[in-house]
Amino acid sequence: MIPERTLARLKNIVGVGNYLDSPEDKIAYSYDGTPLLRQLPEAILIPRSVAHISQILKLANEEKFSVVPRGSGSGLSGGSIPVENSVVLLTNHWNKILEIDRANLTAWVEPGVITGQIHSAVEEVGLFYPPDPGSSTICTIGGNVAENAGGLRGLKYGVTKNYVMGIEVVLPSGEVILTGGKSVKDVAGYNLKDFFVGSEGTLGVFTRILLKLLPKPDTSRTMLVYYDKISDAADSVSDIIASKITPAALEFLDRTTIKCVEEYAHLGLPTSIESLLMIEADGRSSVVDEDIATIRSICARHKALEIRIAVDDEDASKLRSARKVAFSALARVRPTTILEDATVPRSEVARMLDIINRIAASHALLFGNFGHAGDGNLHPTCLTDERDKNEIHRAEKAFDEIFNAAVNLGGTITGEHGTGLAKKQFFEKVAGPAQIDMMRKIKGVIDPNAVLNPGKIFSLSPKCEGTMPRTQEQIKKYLDMGAYS
Amino acid sequence: MIPERTLARLKNIVGVGNYLDSPEDKIAYSYDGTPLLRQLPEAILIPRSVAHISQILKLANEEKFSVVPRGSGSGLSGGSIPVENSVVLLTNHWNKILEIDRANLTAWVEPGVITGQIHSAVEEVGLFYPPDPGSSTICTIGGNVAENAGGLRGLKYGVTKNYVMGIEVVLPSGEVILTGGKSVKDVAGYNLKDFFVGSEGTLGVFTRILLKLLPKPDTSRTMLVYYDKISDAADSVSDIIASKITPAALEFLDRTTIKCVEEYAHLGLPTSIESLLMIEADGRSSVVDEDIATIRSICARHKALEIRIAVDDEDASKLRSARKVAFSALARVRPTTILEDATVPRSEVARMLDIINRIAASHALLFGNFGHAGDGNLHPTCLTDERDKNEIHRAEKAFDEIFNAAVNLGGTITGEHGTGLAKKQFFEKVAGPAQIDMMRKIKGVIDPNAVLNPGKIFSLSPKCEGTMPRTQEQIKKYLDMGAYS
Repeated sequence: MIPERTLARLKNIVGVGNYLDSPEDKIAYSYDGTPLLRQLPEAILIPRSVAHISQILKLANEEKFSVVPRGSGSGLSGGSIPVENSVVLLTNHWNKILEIDRANLTAWVEPGVITGQIHSAVEEVGLFYPPDPGSSTICTIGGNVAENAGGLRGLKYGVTKNYVMGIEVVLPSGEVILTGGKSVKDVAGYNLKDFFVGSEGTLGVFTRILLKLLPKPDTSRTMLVYYDKISDAADSVSDIIASKITPAALEFLDRTTIKCVEEYAHLGLPTSIESLLMIEADGRSSVVDEDIATIRSICARHKALEIRIAVDDEDASKLRSARKVAFSALARVRPTTILEDATVPRSEVARMLDIINRIAASHALLFGNFGHAGDGNLHPTCLTDERDKNEIHRAEKAFDEIFNAAVNLGGTITGEHGTGLAKKQFFEKVAGPAQIDMMRKIKGVIDPNAVLNPGKIFSLSPKCEGTMPRTQEQIKKYLDMGAYS
Repeated sequence: MIPERTLARLKNIVGVGNYLDSPEDKIAYSYDGTPLLRQLPEAILIPRSVAHISQILKLANEEKFSVVPRGSGSGLSGGSIPVENSVVLLTNHWNKILEIDRANLTAWVEPGVITGQIHSAVEEVGLFYPPDPGSSTICTIGGNVAENAGGLRGLKYGVTKNYVMGIEVVLPSGEVILTGGKSVKDVAGYNLKDFFVGSEGTLGVFTRILLKLLPKPDTSRTMLVYYDKISDAADSVSDIIASKITPAALEFLDRTTIKCVEEYAHLGLPTSIESLLMIEADGRSSVVDEDIATIRSICARHKALEIRIAVDDEDASKLRSARKVAFSALARVRPTTILEDATVPRSEVARMLDIINRIAASHALLFGNFGHAGDGNLHPTCLTDERDKNEIHRAEKAFDEIFNAAVNLGGTITGEHGTGLAKKQFFEKVAGPAQIDMMRKIKGVIDPNAVLNPGKIFSLSPKCEGTMPRTQEQIKKYLDMGAYS
């Protein structure tokens, strides 16, 4: 419990209208997009200036409470879920695009700008911000930077970290630094900027972000390809890459996902097929036409049942939505949707999908699989019910096996969602003690009182691990509480 | 002085044939590509295994001496110059390309492979490793990763860090970690991998590096454009970028550099012009032809005196060499060449060049300027004579003013060479105490006994700054020694 006196000081810093602590508010900020995890904060703060954030963190060091930064709360690894003895620090109201610099192809934005709004704003002036997480209509750029969010265009364009040129950060001490800038090349000192990207709110609070932009591609074409066998889809993907084409998107859906998408969105997808690829090529029209023709012939060679190429923008947006709505469509089937992002080298996608299906079957679980086939970033999604403790337990076991398999194939437990609370016990198993130790030490010197989002990614101390909230324990506690019932 | 007993233990670790300590050897390893700096090591070690490196670092912690890793020694900021009480650890004999994975577009390489050999090896199988530092025929990939080297293709393709997918690192403690892997997306834990890139040998010794490759562009075309006025060249650059073209290279040379290049390489360059652009476009032939035509008309509009487009590969290589030999050509003019890499946002290139010329004139110094116009990474190069103490002093003052101007224009003191010893006093001025403090703290927890390349980038402690070797003091000491005379 944070003492009343301290809460009063916090209220005094941000002002009474920017301080929330009603039971309803606390419940609203007790969870994020991650299933099964929930913890009440002691208050919610709406800082109005960099100085507010700085003062809040200084007070946290003095009074030993924790601060959990939060954008839209759309994260899928528990990064913005409150920890014990914590206040939530909102940044989603800092939602201005401050500058679009057309000479240097950059944009200064506040952390609370919705990613999709950045897309629209820069495209209006002929520029392009490539990262497009599935949640782009609701997530904030600050959250994207904190989680190093990926998205559909990762294969060709990379992920958020490839587009962050500078960050203004309030450090856990309350000090403010500006790291990076508009120079395309900058190697002065250690690369702090890229270290903040993906640090999941544990090393600093971002108050301004400088993004790199590209010229907007002249044109883009979208196609759907249907297959009877997943291996044919996988072979198509390998051959497309081998033919030197790098599509802007190269996404797949399995049968369960296709069925759910069709029931949800009525796009006219055949529900009997085993697999579907959504492929998008962009760039100069002459090249895009060439690429689409080559891709079409590769897919045909690998026994595609049908190839649908969008005839216009509206049609393209319809085809694209087959992939875009996958999560929402799956989420309707059963009360609890556990969406993961086990990732493997591109060459191992078919093998990994096979392993996931065998693991799901062996635990009698319903899985839908979709994801970024082109970059090996899969989304095995367990459709379950958190009230069924036995099934949840089986799901936990299944994901444990899936993450192990991904790591054994040279992959990772998370390609774009982050580790947060949801995957820290897996992370600690796979990262090895020397790396975890190095991360702990860095966290320890930058945030010696562990005021900023402590216990996310890894437990702060291997010795008192048992005293930190852990996912499995939290799940049990949570289920025992009968929450969401 | 490292005690004889400790040196004997080192000799025992690597074996007698892998231990050098003759006066000639010590002199050969007392300097790198950086002018004005030199320090004798106490021995030179040629480790034959990861275990050797690990044992050397463990002994360093025990016996409190320093270890300075070194590849080809072609660095331009003093990163591989020995420090007091140190041994040099060579990695340039670890020169095998271990694997080229065509399905995942990756290559595992040892740190001592020459960058140019990576280019050739991957191009033979239709792949492409874009970073191409000016020294690519002599520098090692390990050094490139340690310095986050740039090069001519930075504008379109980025720098070394954009192509490092994994690193095997021996930490200062002697522990070995493997960070990153073949997954294109990986956000598990803090981004240690990218933090090692550009850490200038101060945080770990790299023993294996996993590189990202691209499909090799179908074609490439090269052109030279001559101008009467630098501002016309700068306007051409801005308009090329604004027209949504991203050339593979967009380089410039000023009059002094052009004259030196022509005298050195006899390429038929007119020596009366003020400025020259070397432009290269690559990709699909249809697009490249289109781009070259657009670029030609933009340059013509900005009063280009002549536009030479290469007719074949041999001709292209000749035109490219106008830029490639710039450093060597300038280096012939006077005994000492101080090549710097002050970098500004692309929009400030013309202004920065003007400032450099004014600063050079005000200190009565001869400067040649060339560099990467497309990404703002300039190479102001002072042609001087280290025996002339007064002139060297003026050069120091000039660079101080140049770095300040770059930072004032939103730029940085180093775009691709690193900070090392040569620029640490400037870095400490511009980075601000909070950032330096954070870097010091991270160095301190990862390398608590400061065994690995200490005093590079920043002084280890602000309190004993005076006791650390500093560039200006070193220069004085060095000049007093009459070295190189």
